[in-house]
Amino acid sequence: MAEPSRPGTTSASGITGASPGAPAPTPGGSLIATLPGAAYSSPEIFAREQEAVFENLWCCVLRSAELAAPGDFRTVTVGRESVLVLRNTAGELRAFLNVCSHRGTRLCAGESGTVRRTLRCSYHAWSYDLDGTLVAAPNLARMPDLDRTAYGLRPVALREWLGYTWLCLAEEPPSFDEHVRGAATERLGDPAAIDRYDAEGLMLGHRVRYDVRANWKLLVENFMECYHCSTIHPELVAVLPEFGGGYAAQTKVGQGASFAGAARGFTVDGGPGFERLPGLAEEQDRRYFAITVRPQVFINLVPDHVILHRMFPHAHDRTVVECDWLYAPDVVASGADLSHSVELFHRVNEQDFAVCERTQPGMASRAYRAGGVLVPAEHHIGEFHAWVTRMLA
Amino acid sequence: MAEPSRPGTTSASGITGASPGAPAPTPGGSLIATLPGAAYSSPEIFAREQEAVFENLWCCVLRSAELAAPGDFRTVTVGRESVLVLRNTAGELRAFLNVCSHRGTRLCAGESGTVRRTLRCSYHAWSYDLDGTLVAAPNLARMPDLDRTAYGLRPVALREWLGYTWLCLAEEPPSFDEHVRGAATERLGDPAAIDRYDAEGLMLGHRVRYDVRANWKLLVENFMECYHCSTIHPELVAVLPEFGGGYAAQTKVGQGASFAGAARGFTVDGGPGFERLPGLAEEQDRRYFAITVRPQVFINLVPDHVILHRMFPHAHDRTVVECDWLYAPDVVASGADLSHSVELFHRVNEQDFAVCERTQPGMASRAYRAGGVLVPAEHHIGEFHAWVTRMLA
Amino acid sequence: MAEPSRPGTTSASGITGASPGAPAPTPGGSLIATLPGAAYSSPEIFAREQEAVFENLWCCVLRSAELAAPGDFRTVTVGRESVLVLRNTAGELRAFLNVCSHRGTRLCAGESGTVRRTLRCSYHAWSYDLDGTLVAAPNLARMPDLDRTAYGLRPVALREWLGYTWLCLAEEPPSFDEHVRGAATERLGDPAAIDRYDAEGLMLGHRVRYDVRANWKLLVENFMECYHCSTIHPELVAVLPEFGGGYAAQTKVGQGASFAGAARGFTVDGGPGFERLPGLAEEQDRRYFAITVRPQVFINLVPDHVILHRMFPHAHDRTVVECDWLYAPDVVASGADLSHSVELFHRVNEQDFAVCERTQPGMASRAYRAGGVLVPAEHHIGEFHAWVTRMLA
Repeated sequence: MAEPSRPGTTSASGITGASPGAPAPTPGGSLIATLPGAAYSSPEIFAREQEAVFENLWCCVLRSAELAAPGDFRTVTVGRESVLVLRNTAGELRAFLNVCSHRGTRLCAGESGTVRRTLRCSYHAWSYDLDGTLVAAPNLARMPDLDRTAYGLRPVALREWLGYTWLCLAEEPPSFDEHVRGAATERLGDPAAIDRYDAEGLMLGHRVRYDVRANWKLLVENFMECYHCSTIHPELVAVLPEFGGGYAAQTKVGQGASFAGAARGFTVDGGPGFERLPGLAEEQDRRYFAITVRPQVFINLVPDHVILHRMFPHAHDRTVVECDWLYAPDVVASGADLSHSVELFHRVNEQDFAVCERTQPGMASRAYRAGGVLVPAEHHIGEFHAWVTRMLA
Repeated sequence: MAEPSRPGTTSASGITGASPGAPAPTPGGSLIATLPGAAYSSPEIFAREQEAVFENLWCCVLRSAELAAPGDFRTVTVGRESVLVLRNTAGELRAFLNVCSHRGTRLCAGESGTVRRTLRCSYHAWSYDLDGTLVAAPNLARMPDLDRTAYGLRPVALREWLGYTWLCLAEEPPSFDEHVRGAATERLGDPAAIDRYDAEGLMLGHRVRYDVRANWKLLVENFMECYHCSTIHPELVAVLPEFGGGYAAQTKVGQGASFAGAARGFTVDGGPGFERLPGLAEEQDRRYFAITVRPQVFINLVPDHVILHRMFPHAHDRTVVECDWLYAPDVVASGADLSHSVELFHRVNEQDFAVCERTQPGMASRAYRAGGVLVPAEHHIGEFHAWVTRMLA
Repeated sequence: MAEPSRPGTTSASGITGASPGAPAPTPGGSLIATLPGAAYSSPEIFAREQEAVFENLWCCVLRSAELAAPGDFRTVTVGRESVLVLRNTAGELRAFLNVCSHRGTRLCAGESGTVRRTLRCSYHAWSYDLDGTLVAAPNLARMPDLDRTAYGLRPVALREWLGYTWLCLAEEPPSFDEHVRGAATERLGDPAAIDRYDAEGLMLGHRVRYDVRANWKLLVENFMECYHCSTIHPELVAVLPEFGGGYAAQTKVGQGASFAGAARGFTVDGGPGFERLPGLAEEQDRRYFAITVRPQVFINLVPDHVILHRMFPHAHDRTVVECDWLYAPDVVASGADLSHSVELFHRVNEQDFAVCERTQPGMASRAYRAGGVLVPAEHHIGEFHAWVTRMLA
């Protein structure tokens, strides 16, 4: 769905120029080429993306509040790796590859749970403290030379932002500020703009997990353009009428889509939502902002809640999406009916993912061997294509 | 089952001579080698066959009468491609790759249906007329340079014969007359012979879809020889006694297998069938003729009906077969009981496909690494093997 | 589980020396490296193991008594091949690739059955006697030059030992005495030691088939070490207390693990088992011996029964294990309750296979790219790793 086009950014990025992977203009003049079909249909290219993109950049994996107390853990997937995220005895979050250093057994087999002071492997009882150091093992006393730190768990870089835990598998992670926060700043103009929503202080009101039979890049592209909104998103266009025009009206950084005059809130029927979040600036009211944080997060900002999508690619043609609806704590605590609020973007999600699933099979066709085309309202997707191409170079 | 051997054709083709891919004589003297096992068990070789055979030659996909009126469409599979076949507003058949020219979405997701004047993509509403020309799209007016023909649907070559629609994905299709009609002429001798059955004028009386866990070439080989008939086809041999001899009696082009004296018709119990089709020549009465139209059609001609098999290869070890039983329109219209007529070849199909499924696993064995052997009654299969080998060369 | 470490053997084999594939000492000093993770997670390496190990060495496939009378047959899997094992008219066992020499059809599609004098192919009725010679085929008389031996079934080398049938697909099988019997002699010291259990004269009391989602080598490694026993095998350690120490007490060839003083038998609750097998030497009483016969057999010897595991690897991450419990014929004939006896090792099996399944996923992790480590109590596993490495070289 729904991130507005950014023509200024697009032309600045020199997509039609000489940058590596830049798409060539097509014979049609006003159209430029997409990635070739193989980029979406090849298991080999997907494997390279797992390594070069998802196992190399910052990925958002869970809401930090899900790990409330010391010893709480969850296992999450980053690229092709199982990662154990836990809260240590000092109350800080830590992440480790979910693999015993001895013989490789999964330390935690389930999705979540709570341990006491140590993580104990179920095979040979090697035990690690909650900072990953090897602290006990059978016969350990007879192995005096053993470097207990060297045989500790393999740590994974971890940052928190917006109330979420972000992980990076790279040995030398890229700058979080530049790659993650920077995406929001680039879209909203002002680094403070997103902070006004206080996403960290919000509470999870609703979560839906979607299992989508499509390549992750089709989901990104779909999120980046509005050209399809008039065709498949009647409820969304009713609230954000400019989305019906194909070209999103916002042509400047920082501008959001305005609510329809008749819309009382960002709800499926245009009825009232909840109180405007306390920190918002006046220009953020009655507006929708969308941000893509590459490679796997979509952020949607409206006055009374935040919607955040995390994508987990499983195969070249399968992507699991977890979508969270976040509200002010008092709204959630009050037991208010969230359904009209949630339903709007849930429908948008279902509409988008269904069309992505109808698009995936065509990616393997000879008709799409050289890819398809982007109309002017989609030209900024070329920037994403150039980025993917660079990442795999 | 059932196509008789053609020794004359076989020796003429120089199978044991120097033609590329010709099988070598085996130590047994009277036996020649088959294709090696990998030809049947390798997914890689199957992928090459999809490209070089099924996506390159004429394939028979549906009965044209299934698309009765303008706007009726069906989606069919040719090789690995989804193809949309429809009847245009002028009442003519057209075929296109089932892929939107914009971003690659399937235009028609279902198996069949009816559209009005246009095909409208469900993603961004690009719309094509029934001849494949782009006629509408959101914001199209703002893209004045757009070549609407260049962004039309990709056409697929289409011919009609015997009441069926045949497609070819190749840019420059081979001669239909030579490759398709020629197969019938080569078998029957006289180009007019098949026309006397007026297959186009017949009506579909019954259709069965078989999902066979075997390589398509095992089905072709099975259809080409009678050496197995005495073992697995008791009902067929009862009607066509010469098939029990392993060597089919027909040693000349144009000769069919004679019905048993006691057989009143081509039925499972030898009971009467229906009226002889009106155009038949005397020498076509009480006879069975079989024709293989490479790569995926078997035609069976008997006095009162025509049986036509279409194969759709899905994997190196899986082939879907659709088999049609065609009768004179008045027979079908009368509501006559077709079951004794249909049951004969339905049993033959089930017997053949079951044994092909028992043969498929052995193809991957070290015992079959160099292939098996053909007895003299099967020598003409070597011609098919040489053809396959040439197609992949 | 349970084969004790053999430090003497280990150091003699020069694992830390210059033998090909020998693991290098790790920085930890007292630890040595395992095989790299790909050895357990790569389908390609598994395919090479099928060819170089399971299709090249002696594999134990069935209990010979399962083929009681002439004409009885069973189909078994060796590596990737279906093999037909039968008792011929003279009462001897024979094995053949389960592939007709003509066109490759499976001769016997089911798991077991009985034939009369011949094996008749269901496709073209080629018929073989129970020694594999081609004896009949349609039109065979018209093929006078046909070498009926050359077109017989492909024999597979067969030996019997311990009442089991062992097969080898290699053209020139390795020495059975050296590779199979030799493994028992090497472990027990005295070639006569295993004969005293008279495994051939025992009867099958119970059989369990386990479908384990783990690489076969994880099962071998698990069987070879006791370092995990204290963690996952409480019942076994109760009967064999020295297994609780991580280091098995047996440091000499021929020594078995002693039963706990309180254990009256090798049973799940330490209750009495059955009469000691008649031929046992005094030093074999109240002791457990374990033998690994590479590549796919584990033998467990206790005073009143024998437990034999056969592994059938299906994929890099899937191994089917058939485990037999063998007792004196009069015990089985008496209908005695075997459950307490069987239950002990059945639990051990379930405990072991569950932990192997928790270990398999970690094999593909970047944390295990260079493998894990072996503690001193596991160092003899390095010998197995060196052997696997040599087999694939």
